[in-house]
Amino acid sequence: MTTGVRRRMGVEERKRQLIGVALELFGERSPEDVSIDEIASAAGISRPLVYHYFPGKQSLYEAALRRAAEELTARFTEPHEGPLGARLHRVMVRFFDFVDEHGPGFTALMRGGPAAGSGTAVPALIDGVRQAAYEQILAHLGVRQPPARLELVVRSWVSLAESTALLWLEGRRVPRAELEWQLVHDFAALVAVSAAYDAGMARILLDIAANEPPDGAFADLVGRLGGLGGERTPPPPVPAQQPRRAPATRQV
Amino acid sequence: MTTGVRRRMGVEERKRQLIGVALELFGERSPEDVSIDEIASAAGISRPLVYHYFPGKQSLYEAALRRAAEELTARFTEPHEGPLGARLHRVMVRFFDFVDEHGPGFTALMRGGPAAGSGTAVPALIDGVRQAAYEQILAHLGVRQPPARLELVVRSWVSLAESTALLWLEGRRVPRAELEWQLVHDFAALVAVSAAYDAGMARILLDIAANEPPDGAFADLVGRLGGLGGERTPPPPVPAQQPRRAPATRQV
Repeated sequence: MTTGVRRRMGVEERKRQLIGVALELFGERSPEDVSIDEIASAAGISRPLVYHYFPGKQSLYEAALRRAAEELTARFTEPHEGPLGARLHRVMVRFFDFVDEHGPGFTALMRGGPAAGSGTAVPALIDGVRQAAYEQILAHLGVRQPPARLELVVRSWVSLAESTALLWLEGRRVPRAELEWQLVHDFAALVAVSAAYDAGMARILLDIAANEPPDGAFADLVGRLGGLGGERTPPPPVPAQQPRRAPATRQV
Repeated sequence: MTTGVRRRMGVEERKRQLIGVALELFGERSPEDVSIDEIASAAGISRPLVYHYFPGKQSLYEAALRRAAEELTARFTEPHEGPLGARLHRVMVRFFDFVDEHGPGFTALMRGGPAAGSGTAVPALIDGVRQAAYEQILAHLGVRQPPARLELVVRSWVSLAESTALLWLEGRRVPRAELEWQLVHDFAALVAVSAAYDAGMARILLDIAANEPPDGAFADLVGRLGGLGGERTPPPPVPAQQPRRAPATRQV
């Protein structure tokens, strides 16, 4: 960044630079293991100058996190076009890109280390991202006032996506492409389970299904599970289905 | 507890009493809102005497949590008899009993308040309970060396059970009996989704299915989902199945 001649940056530009450097380092090692000295050195400025922009490591950490949260939230945005399964899958790919890039930082964040505990700005930032994910899914389902069961299914699926990503980061022993699809199917499966016991959820499930192509992801899953059954006697489980029809925005 | 004549208790007995009193109060309000004065008063002893047994609120909080963790872990124990769905359901009923009894304490714990952050004994206690749940499930599946995909499915389901319970506590808008069954079916559904893309998981799914009765919970779910499909054209999703056969302990 600097080699003798130090380029002068504006305040905002310098802050952005430091946040970017911090995020890069947090993507390699846990924020607890990254010192202000390292951040200063990577940014090509002195330690006191870092403190000039951020009063302490926690403040830089929170600023970095805010940037990361905005970036992740932006990745949830997906056009309301085509089958829901395919839309959700594109979001899952971008979500795993993010998790992949920010590995150690993501883990430290979600495991709630000392820099991420209550009393810091972190829990509210995390809740904000979860809420954004939740609202995006409702928007794609065309539901404005979700019944309690749908809220529970969507929010618990968001938490499932988080825990799946965290478990994946511990050793990356399952290909991420498989997990990206798995989470899409998990969503359909959780909706289906809830639909079995509730008429409102059944309508939502049938609306999702009606918009899925016969050669889409859900049909593929059904086919594979059907194939499994052939090995023994009764045809096994199937957590989703096919048809097509565009769902309209609707109040439940 | 005391009415004029104060019964003398031994050290361990007194500690047990204070832990019991604290747990009862944490079941009504968040630990952060419960003072040592209240605990002393509910136990019928003076505030200094509480400090004689526990050097501070954090130490009493952690002792109470240790007791709660042991109690919850004990509830996971279930005889290895009968269909897996029914076993898991009995555990879910006991889990929701626990969550119901310890509501605010459970929420504070899992949301990681100041008394439950890193640097305290709490994260390790929580991880211990999660690990116990994970190991119990593997034991019931008869799997000693779980493949990575099974580990991921089981651990992520444990996290799903946690988040479902936490969401339920916010207003209790869905009957808990429904969620107890839902989580059993969610387990089968997550295994089924993973089984669709992996032969090892498919074998585990078929083993679970082989031990389920034709009139059991999974068959009921399949029947209900089949019924839903009748309302439109193609028969909808189904996340589990029937048959019977006792599974032997097995290495995967």
